[in-house]
Parts: sequence; structure tokens; C-alpha cells
Amino acid sequence: MTGLPDRLEVEDLQQNLGEIQAVLARLRPAEDGAAPAEHDPALLATVRARLDRLHPADIAVVLEALPLDERQIVWELVRAEREGEILLELSDAVRESLIARMEPRELVAAAGTLEADEIADLLPDFPEAVAQDVIRALPQEEREQLRAALSYEEGTVGAVMDFDQVTVREDVSLEAVTRYLRRLDQLPDHTDQLFVVDREQRLRGTLPLAQLIVADLELEVGQVMAAVSLQLHPEDAAEDAAQAFERYDLVSAPVVDHFGRLIGRLTVNAVVDYIRDMSSQAQLAESGLREEEDIFAPVWNSFRNRWAWLAVNLVTAFIASRVIGAFEGSIERLVALAALMPIVAGIGGNSGNQTTTMIVRALALGQIQREYWGRLLRKELSVATLNGVAWGTLLGAVAFALYGSVALGGVMALAMLLTLLLAAGMGVAIPYARARLGRDPAAGASVLITACTDSGGFFIFLGLATLFLL
Amino acid sequence: MTGLPDRLEVEDLQQNLGEIQAVLARLRPAEDGAAPAEHDPALLATVRARLDRLHPADIAVVLEALPLDERQIVWELVRAEREGEILLELSDAVRESLIARMEPRELVAAAGTLEADEIADLLPDFPEAVAQDVIRALPQEEREQLRAALSYEEGTVGAVMDFDQVTVREDVSLEAVTRYLRRLDQLPDHTDQLFVVDREQRLRGTLPLAQLIVADLELEVGQVMAAVSLQLHPEDAAEDAAQAFERYDLVSAPVVDHFGRLIGRLTVNAVVDYIRDMSSQAQLAESGLREEEDIFAPVWNSFRNRWAWLAVNLVTAFIASRVIGAFEGSIERLVALAALMPIVAGIGGNSGNQTTTMIVRALALGQIQREYWGRLLRKELSVATLNGVAWGTLLGAVAFALYGSVALGGVMALAMLLTLLLAAGMGVAIPYARARLGRDPAAGASVLITACTDSGGFFIFLGLATLFLL
Repeated sequence: MTGLPDRLEVEDLQQNLGEIQAVLARLRPAEDGAAPAEHDPALLATVRARLDRLHPADIAVVLEALPLDERQIVWELVRAEREGEILLELSDAVRESLIARMEPRELVAAAGTLEADEIADLLPDFPEAVAQDVIRALPQEEREQLRAALSYEEGTVGAVMDFDQVTVREDVSLEAVTRYLRRLDQLPDHTDQLFVVDREQRLRGTLPLAQLIVADLELEVGQVMAAVSLQLHPEDAAEDAAQAFERYDLVSAPVVDHFGRLIGRLTVNAVVDYIRDMSSQAQLAESGLREEEDIFAPVWNSFRNRWAWLAVNLVTAFIASRVIGAFEGSIERLVALAALMPIVAGIGGNSGNQTTTMIVRALALGQIQREYWGRLLRKELSVATLNGVAWGTLLGAVAFALYGSVALGGVMALAMLLTLLLAAGMGVAIPYARARLGRDPAAGASVLITACTDSGGFFIFLGLATLFLL
Repeated sequence: MTGLPDRLEVEDLQQNLGEIQAVLARLRPAEDGAAPAEHDPALLATVRARLDRLHPADIAVVLEALPLDERQIVWELVRAEREGEILLELSDAVRESLIARMEPRELVAAAGTLEADEIADLLPDFPEAVAQDVIRALPQEEREQLRAALSYEEGTVGAVMDFDQVTVREDVSLEAVTRYLRRLDQLPDHTDQLFVVDREQRLRGTLPLAQLIVADLELEVGQVMAAVSLQLHPEDAAEDAAQAFERYDLVSAPVVDHFGRLIGRLTVNAVVDYIRDMSSQAQLAESGLREEEDIFAPVWNSFRNRWAWLAVNLVTAFIASRVIGAFEGSIERLVALAALMPIVAGIGGNSGNQTTTMIVRALALGQIQREYWGRLLRKELSVATLNGVAWGTLLGAVAFALYGSVALGGVMALAMLLTLLLAAGMGVAIPYARARLGRDPAAGASVLITACTDSGGFFIFLGLATLFLL
């Protein structure tokens, strides 16, 4: 029996994982680097039996948590007919590591167990020739669905919708609908409503399952159907659709083309996956990782995932370094400047990032109307002034205490204030400019703001010092 | 008619918002600072009529996007019986701004329109005396539910579950169940299954609605009910439950106490809200904002939300500054060090953050078993070595090109390598130590790692320079 076992509790997964690992540990050679021990068939059978009882998503968690060699052992124990659904649940990096070692024949078979919208998620990772074989092996209708699914850009509703909608006609009785549903082996997951369409597949309304249960079965669909509340188009932004699911607490929503014809549906589970993916991508991007990393990936893969960000930061650090270089004469004459300058630049960067994060979030939630940008900028400059006076005074006092120079303390305080004002200004201006240019205001905001505040902070502090102290 | 209008599309919300703002603009005084114009009753009626047609969640979006004075005007136009559901949809900061200006009587009335689990979300923001009035006004059963909901810690299933489960007995016919459902005015949202309980409310199984539709109505519930797949306890971590909803694509799950008695249910909409909240909190925390900010909040509120992080960073920047201060003699003799040192520290910080982010994520997904920490550390040190050799060589060459000193180039290269190794080591050690101590590995990881790499990077670079160059 595959699927969810009886009465699963949230701790059970951790336990399953632990038990599988305990078994695998017995397969492992005693010493690192030694040849792998003979694989005991009885042990392998134990692991296989355990895997058969696990949900595909749980097998995916087990695979993600295993180093490459053990992952491969477990993967070979998985039943062929389950490989497709498990691949779907894996992160990109781990999925690639498994696909790379699968035979073309296995890949085609794995895809064969999936539906068109699911195949569309896997296909980009398949070798080109295998992908063609997969497409050829599909029946006509699914092949068209697959082509459609592949044609929508990432981040659109089309890329996350499925084709599992159940449709009924307006002029049939609820009795007939019930008979029809009984003939389907089971309803697709997340079917909370049936979609009512006319002969041209144009969406006319929806029939909530709850309605079907409580209404008189003699009635016709048209008499009890509900109006369509939210309808999506495949080219709508998935993020907008996700926000609509959140706001209206939806389980499913119809997707229609520009003639109003039903072509698919979006379900809350696809929305949940989308939200998680986006939030994890945002988190990774924030720290300069290009994509999710297989923690057991070869060193070379990790290097490739990380070098680009380090290169960008190297460039901005180099520019900041040249700003300092321009003031080497001043530093030579007053070496205290070298010790104090990173404080100014650092606090400026932190403060600018606070402003930008808040604004990027508000933009994403649609909270900033055009006419309020000026008001926002004034507010951020006021907060920066408050921060600048508070921290500037403190730091000026510290500088005076350390180096005994009132003038140095004054320069420190003034530099702090000006750098915070610069940070607030850039913190508003960068997302504003990107939003106006129609770009994603979040992308790279942190690098840009830090670049401005580093170079700017060094320039302001060293410039003021050169003017007033030397 | 409240609720969703017909055939809403995702662009409609933006349009609604725009139209309401256009009307509000006519209410606004022409000049900033001038006294507010007389409010035209016809205009206000237009806004009110428009608000009445909006879903509560959309009104919340409108309110979030308005400055304080206009927000108050709109809030006063909202029908009293809708205030409760709108408050639920607002962010904490905006909700507080509205509650602060509501009469106790209004607050009690607003809470009166909500269910126990919803009241539990609002009550902490109410003045203590009002909260007591709200509790007293509830019927006995709901009062107990509210007490229960308030007793669960934030971040547990108990804090996000609701009490809207529909229960049936095993020994009744599906016919009787259908009659029972027909008597309910409507099924609670997200009812994809009924819960089958015995006389002591112990959970025996579930009856999916889809099953109820296709099964023979003569049968008894016990004959067609499904086994409970996932059952939750109120003290389970909400994050674990959310991961289970994602993995198993659930719409609802029962929550039982330790005697197996059904006490509530968790629905996918609560999970979606929870995931969004957590991801937004993580994003805010990453940039040093304590909580979501009302973008139109008074300057003082913003200052309070941000100063703590700046203070922490000030302390770490100060420590780094003292490390530099210890080498002032060296900088005085070779001022190039001042210009080059921020590059080493900066790249170290970025690289350490990459490592930590990856490990924190993998920990959250349960991908790191105890026995693999050593392997992870070795891998991160290898990646750091690769990065160190690559970027160290490049930077060494740049330093040589700028300052014409082979020795300085060599020190730069070696410092880069050692700092990246330090960053990788700390990047693994910090989340490891926090996880071992049972703390949240993510909290403050970025500050800690940056503090280590800043001070460490300056120390390594200036120390090596002092040893080899002077």
C-alpha cells in the first residue's frame, strides 16, 4: 500500500528517516575511503519494504538528507512506478543528481506515470533526446496540454496550474452529476467545486461539492450553481494569484483563456508550493546563493553556485577600497581615521537595508500608490535624522573618548548623520527606480544599497576629516 | 451583497484601490498642512457603497495603503458588523493603529461577530478591560474554546487551528448525514472531510465529502469512512504541520488531544497565512526590522522598530574598529593596508553568510542528520579553499598592480584564503552550536557571522601584514 499510513503524526517522519539511516549505516563501509561492503540482500529488502510504505514526499525528504552514494542506493530500491512522483517532490539540485544517473528508458517510464502539468516541471531537466521521446509517448490531448504548460513563462499562473478540472453542463440534473462522479475512479485532489461549462467550454459557473451534497438531486446544475468568484488567466502573475488565494481563502480557482474558455485550474497546494519556493528563493538570493544547493553536492557545484555573488561583492568592495585609496594621504596623517571609518560605512549599510526591505515588502503587497512616494521619502529622511542624531552623538562621544579630539568627534557625528541620510535616500530611490523601470524592486537591492553606503560612507567620513581635521 | 463580486480578476483589486483613492483625493485639502475640507456627504456615500461591495481582505489592503488620516476616514465608513473580519486581515501595526482609536463598545461588538479562534488572534491587541468584556460576552462553549486558543503558545498548532470541524457518528447512515448537512446553513470553509467520532469525541476516522457524494446513501458512515491519515496535537510545532500540509497536499487535518479526542482542525488557509507570516518575519529579521512596519507609521514608531538592530551592529562594528586600532602602528607605516582591509573582511562576511544560509535552510528541512556535520564542515572548508585560492590570487595580483609590492600581494592572497576558511568554519559552527543548544539556528546567525568575519578578517590581514611586511 502506498500513500499515507494510518494515523501519521508529525514526529513519525523524523523517526522513519532515522530508521532508514540506521539500516543504511550497516551498508556503509566501516572506514571512510574503504571499498563499499558487500550489500546484504536481506538488509536491502528491509529498506525497500520501508520505502514502499512511505509517501513519495517523505521519500524525497529521505533522499535529500542522504549523501550522494547512499542516496543512489536508496534510489535504486524505489519502485520504478513511483520514481516520477518522487522526482517531482525533490529540490532541483537533488533531482538533477538523480536524473544524471538514470537511463533514458527509465526517465521515459518515470514521466509516463505523471500528468501533463507535472511532466512540464520535470522536462527541462531531461536530456533533449529523452524529452522528445517523452513528448512522443503521450496521447494527443496530453501532448497539447504539455506544450501549453511548457509555453507559459515561469512565475505565471499557466506554469503552476493543472488540467485536473472536472466539468459539467448546466442542463443536467444533480442526479446525473452524481452518477458521473461515481464512474470516475476518484475525484482529483483539491476538487472542492466542479466547473460548469457550455458546449464551447466557456465557463458559466461553479458547482461546489458542498452544494451538490445538500441540494435536491432532482434539480438541474444551472439551478444551483454559484457565480464564478475569481477567475484567472494563464498569463496572470502567479504571485497575484497566490495573494488572491490568501485573501479569499480559496481551495481552487478556474483558469480561462481570453474567450472565457476553461483551460485548467489552480489549486491551493500549487499555491503553497509556489509561496514556499518564492520565499526560499528570496532567502537564498539575499545571501547570494544562486539556487537551492544540495548540501551533499560536490565542492565544484557549490563553488559555481556561489562565485557570482562573491564576484559582484568583490567589485563593490574594490570600488570602496579605491575611495579609501584616494584619501591615503589623510589616513597617513591621522591613522585614527582607518579605525573609525568602517563603523560609519557599516551602520549606513544596515540602516539602508532596513529602509529598502520595508519598501520592497510594501511594494510587493501593493501598498505604495504613486502619490505617496514623496511622503515616504520624507518619512525615511526623518527617521534617518533621528537615528543620525542619536547614534552620531554616541559615536562622536566614543571617538572623543578614544582619541581625545573634539574635532574628530564632531566629524564622526556629522559623517554618521550624513551617511544615514544618504542610506535613507538611496533606500527609497533604488526600489523606486527599479519599480518605475518595470523591474523587480527586490532583485539586487541589498548589493546596490550596500555598495552606495560603503563607498558613500567612506567618502563622507574621510572627506569631512580631510576638510576639517588636516 | 458582501463577499466576492462576480468574476473578479486579479487586476480588479488594483483598480478598486485606485478608484477609492481617487475619491479620497477629492476629500483631501488642496495644500499640505491646510485644514481638511468639508466632507461632502455624497462623496462619502460613494466610498461607503464601494466598500460594501469589497471582500474584507480587500478592504484590509485598501486600509494598509492609506496614510493615517485617510485610513481613519475609510475605517469610519466601514459597516460595524464587518469591522471584526477586517481587523483579522490587517497587519499587526495597522490593526493597532485602528484599535487605538476605537471605543470599547465598538471593540466588543467587532469581536462579537467573530469565532473563538479568530477572537484569540485579536484579543492581545485589546485593552485589558475590553478583553475581559469580550470574554464575558461569549457563550460558555466559545468562552472555553477562546481560553484554550489563548493558552497555546505562538508557533504551535493550537494557536492556528479553528473549531469549525463538522463531526458525525459511525453508526448513522449517509442519508442521515446528508440530511444533517442540509440543516446546517452552510458548511464551514475548507470542509473537505467530516470527522467521525465516538460518544467520547474520540476520532475514529474521516468521511471525505467526495466519498459522501459517490457512495450509496443507504450505507452507514462506518462502512465508507477513511482512516485518519495525519492527526495533529495542539502542541505540535505549526512549522512541522505546515510541512506536512505541503508534503501531503492536505486541505484540512484533525487536531486531537492526548486521549485521542477531537478538539479542532487545521485548514490549509491557516497554513498559507502561517507560511507567509513566517517568511515575512524571516525577511524582516534578516534586515534588522523587529516587526512589520506600517509604512505610514509615525517616525517615532519606525525608530523604535529599527534601533535595536543598529545598536547590535554598532557594537560589532566597534569591536572590529578596536581590532584595527590595535594595528594603527602598522597602518601608519603602510597606509595601503587601510584601503585593502575592507575587501578581505567584506568578502569573508559574504562567504560566511552563504554557508550559514545554506545550513540553516537544510536544518529547517530536516536534511542534516547528526552524523553528517563533520562531512559538511569538510565540504565547506574545501569550497572555501577553492574560493580562497581563486579570489586570493586575483586580489593578490590587484594589490601588486596597485602598490607594486610582491610581498603585499602575497599577504593579501594569504589573508583572503585564511579569512574564507574562518568564514566557512564559523558558518558551520554557529548554526551547529545553536541547534545543539536547542535554539533557533537562524536567529541572529547573520550578525554573528559578520561579527566574526569582520573582526577576524581585519585581524588576519593586519596581523599577517605586521608579521611579513614591516
